Amino acid sequence: MAEPLKIALAGLGTVGAGVIRLVEANRALIERRAGRPIQITVVSARDRSKSRGVDLSPYAWEDDMVILGERDDVDVVVEMVGGSDGPALALARTTIEAGKALVTANKAMIAHHGLELAGKAEAKRVALKFEAAVAGGIPVIKALREGAAANAIERVYGILNGTCNYILSTMEDTGRDFADVLAEAQALGYAEADPTFDVEGIDAAHKLSILSAVAFGTKVDFASVAASGITRLRAADIAQAHSLGYVIRLIGMAEAGADGLFQRVQPHLVPFDHPLAHVDGATNAVVAEGNFSGRLLFQGAGAGDGPTASAVVADLIDIARTTVGGGELGPAFSMPVAELEALAPAATGHRQSRAYIRFMVADRPGVLAEITAALRDAGVSIESLIQKGRAGDAGAVMVAMVTHEGPESAVSEALRLLDGSPSLSEPPLVLHILGE
Amino acid sequence: MAEPLKIALAGLGTVGAGVIRLVEANRALIERRAGRPIQITVVSARDRSKSRGVDLSPYAWEDDMVILGERDDVDVVVEMVGGSDGPALALARTTIEAGKALVTANKAMIAHHGLELAGKAEAKRVALKFEAAVAGGIPVIKALREGAAANAIERVYGILNGTCNYILSTMEDTGRDFADVLAEAQALGYAEADPTFDVEGIDAAHKLSILSAVAFGTKVDFASVAASGITRLRAADIAQAHSLGYVIRLIGMAEAGADGLFQRVQPHLVPFDHPLAHVDGATNAVVAEGNFSGRLLFQGAGAGDGPTASAVVADLIDIARTTVGGGELGPAFSMPVAELEALAPAATGHRQSRAYIRFMVADRPGVLAEITAALRDAGVSIESLIQKGRAGDAGAVMVAMVTHEGPESAVSEALRLLDGSPSLSEPPLVLHILGE
Repeated sequence: MAEPLKIALAGLGTVGAGVIRLVEANRALIERRAGRPIQITVVSARDRSKSRGVDLSPYAWEDDMVILGERDDVDVVVEMVGGSDGPALALARTTIEAGKALVTANKAMIAHHGLELAGKAEAKRVALKFEAAVAGGIPVIKALREGAAANAIERVYGILNGTCNYILSTMEDTGRDFADVLAEAQALGYAEADPTFDVEGIDAAHKLSILSAVAFGTKVDFASVAASGITRLRAADIAQAHSLGYVIRLIGMAEAGADGLFQRVQPHLVPFDHPLAHVDGATNAVVAEGNFSGRLLFQGAGAGDGPTASAVVADLIDIARTTVGGGELGPAFSMPVAELEALAPAATGHRQSRAYIRFMVADRPGVLAEITAALRDAGVSIESLIQKGRAGDAGAVMVAMVTHEGPESAVSEALRLLDGSPSLSEPPLVLHILGE
Repeated sequence: MAEPLKIALAGLGTVGAGVIRLVEANRALIERRAGRPIQITVVSARDRSKSRGVDLSPYAWEDDMVILGERDDVDVVVEMVGGSDGPALALARTTIEAGKALVTANKAMIAHHGLELAGKAEAKRVALKFEAAVAGGIPVIKALREGAAANAIERVYGILNGTCNYILSTMEDTGRDFADVLAEAQALGYAEADPTFDVEGIDAAHKLSILSAVAFGTKVDFASVAASGITRLRAADIAQAHSLGYVIRLIGMAEAGADGLFQRVQPHLVPFDHPLAHVDGATNAVVAEGNFSGRLLFQGAGAGDGPTASAVVADLIDIARTTVGGGELGPAFSMPVAELEALAPAATGHRQSRAYIRFMVADRPGVLAEITAALRDAGVSIESLIQKGRAGDAGAVMVAMVTHEGPESAVSEALRLLDGSPSLSEPPLVLHILGE
């Protein structure tokens, strides 16, 4: 029997405990697949005394997690600490410097420091793997890095945040408003006490920036992701979209081309007949469009301890298999860091799209004329318009419309013309419509 | 720059030509991802003079394709000849014997001889890869072999034949009958002149037997797949199913457990709200249920030269990457042949399911009483029953029903009781209903 692959596990929250449960439950199967045992040798977390529902007695305990990679009884460090910097980053750096492989579920760290870590891993010829950082249990990093590697990927997009998708599909099913559903999701443990990263689109932006790099062969560029979240959506928006043949989903979308790198996280109107319209609850789904493969769709649980552990241990099996023969796994982002292109962020003004624009306006004569005049002057052509009765807000009425396809700059210009108008009780909300 | 990976291409049909087009079109990108060039050095096919729409002048020509693997200018042979035996198998054997890697899109050969070839490849420590053999451009072999490798897979099922799915979804959209739609599909090139392998479920059975082995760690067992096709379906079946809330899809389904290995290809009734109900046209989709990942869905183009070439070249990139470091890719079926379990075929009688049963009966008094009595005597409980007017056949009337959940043996017993009855104008058609 080949030597076991010896694992240090840093961070023993829900997902860290899930990794332990998986390694124990599927031990024999993993050994058959990996060609050798995968064995957790040492664990570390902030608080040793906390009860975690798993038996830690078989493993050594290390107080100083940052030095885990320097231990002789460790081949791979699994980082489940979280946070883009701090102990997670320190641990990642020391592990790779020590010539050990790193497996992480930490999207924030990879979005911010992935290039640095990948460069260090290349120099040390060790693996850096982060399947669990994007889309939970769905092996989408592998699918893009390897499965679709023969293709120029033209576009990658999807539903990358299970919390937002749970909230949106619950709003859709129940007609309730955002704040109400969020509070329930927090009570059920589907949303965190501080939900900012999820509901403001930052978590999805982290994941999108990682997907972009792997799909396009570009440098990770989290800073240029234009992210907006779901906090401004009203039940009435979802109802309007529905009456027009759409559901609303938070979509992360990236394209690479002559214009540069386009990356945006935004709620989109998704036509009923699009596969993403059927993705409900905490499910994630990623679509990649390759120049030979055509459209590929990957769907599954986007979070949770089981799915995340599945992705982490898949990375470990890859490492165990490959290092049996003394090989290496290849670069973290599908090509060496030096080969990754530094694409400038794409300007979005000339993007052609259809948009949903929702105004909350004062209920008095002339407001609709003012809005439609601004749209006309900016060259925005209206496909359909719905004015509803009072939305419950003091005196405010909702006017929602869908535009014909046109440049995004025209919509921006129309909003600029209306900026500061006393007729608008809040800034307009613009959502794009997901095309074919 | 590292040495190119030198490729021999055997078989220059549509898909072989697609591989050439992909390797040429994405040459620079492939080199960045693979870490070295992938270079076709020699090609072979039955007829050298045939025009194929691609320029073969850059490549050497080999008349005797079986010796391609023995040439010094070849590291990997890509087999696109087809057929379970004959030249394809001879080529596969000589290639591996010569210590060269084999990449194939040949599902029939892998279903019949995959274990032998995988054993030989292990002995020679060369790669045997067949991503393109199942579900075209969808990297589902990789997803099961690697992406979901940490999981005990409990069930794998999906839409594995694009021709059947095209025919079924066209029947559904147009209300036309099978023979009519098949003829059109043949005229359009979506179905072969001899469609037997597709419409009788044999092609899907080949693919299912390969998926089973990779998912469950069992020996490939094509012989035990119970396969039926779509030839007996009528437009009226599809209409009935629709009125009950279902579409009909040809589903390949496999489960491994204490009962043994269950493998069946059969048209199923799929509830409208199941993801597979939205898979239309020539698209394929595979669902895998892992004990930690939960349900994973992979969807994309199941055939065609572009998607198939995408899968073939992904295999080549894997080989190019891994052998840079002198490593190996690991076993073809995710674990060594000696580790694969030989599971007996599962008995199906006690499987609990709901079934759609359709009778074509003589239009005279007492027939319905005869059928319902047989079902009662066999213990089959009827959930809903529809008797339609004349189906167009001389004197025959259609009686369709959906049963409550019960053992499959009860339905078999009911049909046995009715066997030979002069009231039935053809054998009853039984389709199972896809559960959650």
